[in-house]
Amino acid sequence: MNNHRIQSEAELIAMLAPLAVGAPGAYGLRDDCARLTPRPGYDLVLKTDPVRAGVHFFPDDPPDAIGWKALAVNVSDLAAKGSDPLAYLMALSFPAPPTHGWMAAFARGLAEAQSAFGCHLIGGDTDRAPGPLTIAITVLGEVPEGRMIRRGTARAGDAIYVSGTLGDSGLGLQLRSEARNLSRDLRNRWNLTDYQTDYFIGRYLRPQPRIDLAHTIRQHASAAMDISDGLVKDLARMCAASGVAAIVDSGLIEWSPSMMIVIRQQPELFSKILSAGDDYEILATVPTDQLAAFERQLALAPTPMHRIGTIIDVSGVAASNVTVTRIDGTEISFDRTGWDHF
Amino acid sequence: MNNHRIQSEAELIAMLAPLAVGAPGAYGLRDDCARLTPRPGYDLVLKTDPVRAGVHFFPDDPPDAIGWKALAVNVSDLAAKGSDPLAYLMALSFPAPPTHGWMAAFARGLAEAQSAFGCHLIGGDTDRAPGPLTIAITVLGEVPEGRMIRRGTARAGDAIYVSGTLGDSGLGLQLRSEARNLSRDLRNRWNLTDYQTDYFIGRYLRPQPRIDLAHTIRQHASAAMDISDGLVKDLARMCAASGVAAIVDSGLIEWSPSMMIVIRQQPELFSKILSAGDDYEILATVPTDQLAAFERQLALAPTPMHRIGTIIDVSGVAASNVTVTRIDGTEISFDRTGWDHF
Repeated sequence: MNNHRIQSEAELIAMLAPLAVGAPGAYGLRDDCARLTPRPGYDLVLKTDPVRAGVHFFPDDPPDAIGWKALAVNVSDLAAKGSDPLAYLMALSFPAPPTHGWMAAFARGLAEAQSAFGCHLIGGDTDRAPGPLTIAITVLGEVPEGRMIRRGTARAGDAIYVSGTLGDSGLGLQLRSEARNLSRDLRNRWNLTDYQTDYFIGRYLRPQPRIDLAHTIRQHASAAMDISDGLVKDLARMCAASGVAAIVDSGLIEWSPSMMIVIRQQPELFSKILSAGDDYEILATVPTDQLAAFERQLALAPTPMHRIGTIIDVSGVAASNVTVTRIDGTEISFDRTGWDHF
Repeated sequence: MNNHRIQSEAELIAMLAPLAVGAPGAYGLRDDCARLTPRPGYDLVLKTDPVRAGVHFFPDDPPDAIGWKALAVNVSDLAAKGSDPLAYLMALSFPAPPTHGWMAAFARGLAEAQSAFGCHLIGGDTDRAPGPLTIAITVLGEVPEGRMIRRGTARAGDAIYVSGTLGDSGLGLQLRSEARNLSRDLRNRWNLTDYQTDYFIGRYLRPQPRIDLAHTIRQHASAAMDISDGLVKDLARMCAASGVAAIVDSGLIEWSPSMMIVIRQQPELFSKILSAGDDYEILATVPTDQLAAFERQLALAPTPMHRIGTIIDVSGVAASNVTVTRIDGTEISFDRTGWDHF
């Protein structure tokens, strides 16, 4: 790594300018504002989700992973709304000037992410300020007019689907944390191989927004959102916004092969995994008359989605609006339903 | 002030939701993303400029002024590009939960600002994180397609104009700073009345983006930007981006009546005032064939603009691309040309 420290805003902008190539409205990051010419017949979908060192990532995480994640967590929301990423603005706040090597790796991670997701950096801002390194991205996507999929539009009878596998990133966070402390307690307890450990940590460091599912979601889902604070908590939010309740059969939830190994050894982790954050999978509800077409479309996407439950009327449940059952039909209770930001 | 502390993200969102009334794509701030349906034939103009306690404002500034300023500094960029504000997203980071009273006043300041500027809150994010209170706004404006005024398009022969008056906010910052320290040194040295002191501090606390000039700028200016880091520094940036140089006659710069009182007593402050930050006035260049029409339009806007100099060829100057002369034609030199963020 080049340890020369970035001296000026101009030097920093020069390192980020390649991320704006291909976006004419970015003006090479050399104007005060960016321009975006919207496509006729399309709505814009917008999201801002800043990430901070010590809260959303470790300060010593690989800088390319930090860049990737900063964009990925925002694009994940767009995909869950059925929209395609277009562009983003990024405000950086550094407590101390980064090294040239750090910035180069950070920009490389962003370049990989925006190339994978199909969007460009069009503008931003840089400050030196006390406090943690902060990357505040605002992302813009597009969706055919009136077709953004909402959170609060799930209806009783709809099937509940979840993409990919859950909990991997939550475990990755724990494994990354113990690796930073030069400990191997969890690795040893679960007899994890290097491959399995790297898999979990990779899911934490480089979340994969499910952009390949965006079109399927917007064609067939009644409601959708990304899971960033844990399945149970986010499903409860969807139910609250929709005025419905949900029943989830935990036996239908898909686990990664590495996660299966952990759950077999420590089954009591189960409820913790369902309330772990940072999944960045898509939670969607699909009306019964759309199920056949939805499943046909799913077969064409690289990322699988699995049906895990059903939306029901609110009158059908008493205490909570999300009920998770074991394979034997008994109910699982949660000490903590998910990640809370406040 | 109500000293009850905000307990949850939901409580905080409830206090901000009134700011989203009137923007259907905000979904009452209860969805994961916002939607914006662009007007056909218009480009979007975008800017993000976060403000942080201890850097851009004092932590104990009135919360309504903090809210106002957070939006105003972003809208100022839009106005200078000739665009009209539409909507904004806002990410808040609190080191500790704010009180209900603080949040109510903060939201009131934002409400006043968005009502004055003609835009709505459509989405955002809230976190608790160590570090200074941060308000990261991304604002979107609109401009007829292809009509955004750039920074790098000034040409030799163009007249240089500046809106309003310069330096008031820079002095306001000093007076606000000494008031926090229970000192009156500057007030006493300059014999400032309460009215004059309040005027300067008001310019610092509540900058007025020059949205009334946006249409005139986009019809007649060849280049424009807002002055946030000092006239000399920002004009030098415009010249560098345009490949030109500038000559400014300091005798043509307009001062507020309160500033005249200070300058008469302490003329050596002059060069400091020209390099003070936080002006949020518009700097624009106007081609000679547009001057008559530009001046006619200016007569209709509440905010005046004054011609202060002329753009010249780069070959015309040696050391620097901005030359500021005294009334007698001699050149003013600057220890520090303006505010640096990095």
